[in-house]
Amino acid sequence: MRKFRIKSPDTAILPAIQEKIDNLTKPKGSLGRLEELALQLGLIQQTLSPELRRPHNILFAADHGILSEGVSPTPKDVTWQQCLHFVKGGAGISFLCEQNGFTLRVVDAGVDFDFPAGSGVIDRKVRRSTRSFLHEAAMTREEFDTCIERGAEEVRTVFDAGCNVVSFGEMGAGNTSSSSLWMHLLAGIPLRDCVGAGSGLDNEGIRRKYDTLQRALDNYRGDTSTEELLRHFGGLEMAMAVGGMLQAAELGMTILVDGFIMTSCMLAAARLQPEVTAYAVYGHQGDEAGHRLLLEALGARPLLQLGLRLGEGSGAVCAYPILQSAVNMINRMDSFRKVSVTKYF
Amino acid sequence: MRKFRIKSPDTAILPAIQEKIDNLTKPKGSLGRLEELALQLGLIQQTLSPELRRPHNILFAADHGILSEGVSPTPKDVTWQQCLHFVKGGAGISFLCEQNGFTLRVVDAGVDFDFPAGSGVIDRKVRRSTRSFLHEAAMTREEFDTCIERGAEEVRTVFDAGCNVVSFGEMGAGNTSSSSLWMHLLAGIPLRDCVGAGSGLDNEGIRRKYDTLQRALDNYRGDTSTEELLRHFGGLEMAMAVGGMLQAAELGMTILVDGFIMTSCMLAAARLQPEVTAYAVYGHQGDEAGHRLLLEALGARPLLQLGLRLGEGSGAVCAYPILQSAVNMINRMDSFRKVSVTKYF
Repeated sequence: MRKFRIKSPDTAILPAIQEKIDNLTKPKGSLGRLEELALQLGLIQQTLSPELRRPHNILFAADHGILSEGVSPTPKDVTWQQCLHFVKGGAGISFLCEQNGFTLRVVDAGVDFDFPAGSGVIDRKVRRSTRSFLHEAAMTREEFDTCIERGAEEVRTVFDAGCNVVSFGEMGAGNTSSSSLWMHLLAGIPLRDCVGAGSGLDNEGIRRKYDTLQRALDNYRGDTSTEELLRHFGGLEMAMAVGGMLQAAELGMTILVDGFIMTSCMLAAARLQPEVTAYAVYGHQGDEAGHRLLLEALGARPLLQLGLRLGEGSGAVCAYPILQSAVNMINRMDSFRKVSVTKYF
Repeated sequence: MRKFRIKSPDTAILPAIQEKIDNLTKPKGSLGRLEELALQLGLIQQTLSPELRRPHNILFAADHGILSEGVSPTPKDVTWQQCLHFVKGGAGISFLCEQNGFTLRVVDAGVDFDFPAGSGVIDRKVRRSTRSFLHEAAMTREEFDTCIERGAEEVRTVFDAGCNVVSFGEMGAGNTSSSSLWMHLLAGIPLRDCVGAGSGLDNEGIRRKYDTLQRALDNYRGDTSTEELLRHFGGLEMAMAVGGMLQAAELGMTILVDGFIMTSCMLAAARLQPEVTAYAVYGHQGDEAGHRLLLEALGARPLLQLGLRLGEGSGAVCAYPILQSAVNMINRMDSFRKVSVTKYF
């Protein structure tokens, strides 16, 4: 795959942003994370007055060959059924996007189903489902590269429409398995700590999932380069999200990171190009066993902890009003210089 | 003071609300706290389709006699200066109210300043500042009762305007001292764990504040009834908030609880009439040392932890979009019965 031209934001502007924040009419530091977010957004956008424009949630969907090994109780048909549901409205991500002004793009990265023409699902299908990584690579090199490119194209499309803040969601029965393996392999966290309940396994199910993933690792004969690991154990929707994240960073957009699966995609993106993390805001820490460890590996502190485990981008979109608050704070609050309030602590 | 007629919500409706939530098109429980909130709001409003109407943030302001003992670095003039700033806009609470559709009411409960006519600050002043509770009761019985009644009247006013969800904010240099004492006396938590930095004390300042509060306790000769403790050590704005909370519960409104000071007011309200807590949603857990312990004493789990310590109702109003998400979830998501999606886990 190609390198994206991602710049680490120039920190020369930081003192000026910090000074603006410190002179707003409040005790210094008293707006906590809102102040940190305003600083980060100012840094990303290289301005004292950051803006959030036309937010999009790009939801990549795909099926997973590993599902046939019994790693998830979710039937495969749910993937395509939910995609049609997303575009019609009425799903979990639908009301969140509507509430928070997000445009939702549902992108078929590799669903094992032919969506009818005019369904509203955007066709970027690379293949129908990954292969099962228990016995072979989930994707070929070419398929992986195509995913990266198509994810990047999706982001360029929304950027061209005026968007400067993007979240990524996913739908893909079985995709916590790929996420757990990426996390284990890329962050060096013991597999046992990376495997959780997904959308609803019991303890026996978690043990079976762990055993399956361990066997997949035992069977692996490839090398340890990031790209090889990603394509062997990954999902098509996940690879597209990685491409989307890298492209968003190249374009100087803010990336809102959703839950466990999208955080593992951010980890993958960061292993490919570490500069990407400067553009990331983490929306939500879920209860999935490994998510806390995964976030720690990235040095990330999510904005919300609401016990969400829906995927679809729900945790990212749900956290968006806090970003808006940060931006409103730095743009709309008065400074002590302007108003008749004694500076206080 | 009078008793409010607060009913514990009838739980007969709970199974029906839970069934509606469980049949929304998502794995059961996968929207976490949003599901719990929807359940609570349905219970409060006794409906499967709860609504949030005309949210108000009632910000009570007052000065504190104890401030002259050096318990806070905030100059007293900041109280009235900030009140004028709130009504003009441009303060911390201003952008949060604007963003989230809140009407802000700034109420003078006992500021040591004569606001000019037409300032926009609502005059419900009971007296100019409390007395210093180091040597005498902060309020007389009559003053305390008047605060309770005026707080209740404010809530009836917004209720009559169509409001069914209300948050309370405060402005009052020195009021974390009263909050710490209420918390210590009403929850039995050691004073040392109740005293924190307020809006910005250093360690030496915290020690001095603790010593002052301990001396105030040593000097106390009253009885241990809740009302006596509240009037002796309280603040006028805090007593008004207590009256407002009790009135809101009587009217079946949802109460959004802000940070440390407003949580101590909810604790006080709960000691007077325990049924009030069924109507409370806790917006934010701050970094103030005792806030976590105080919330634990109430069995409360706040929605946000963003390190805010501004007061004004900021943590409550900042959390409001999450309530909206809960309400949108239960009202706008499709059920599995209605759409062609296999029920999954």
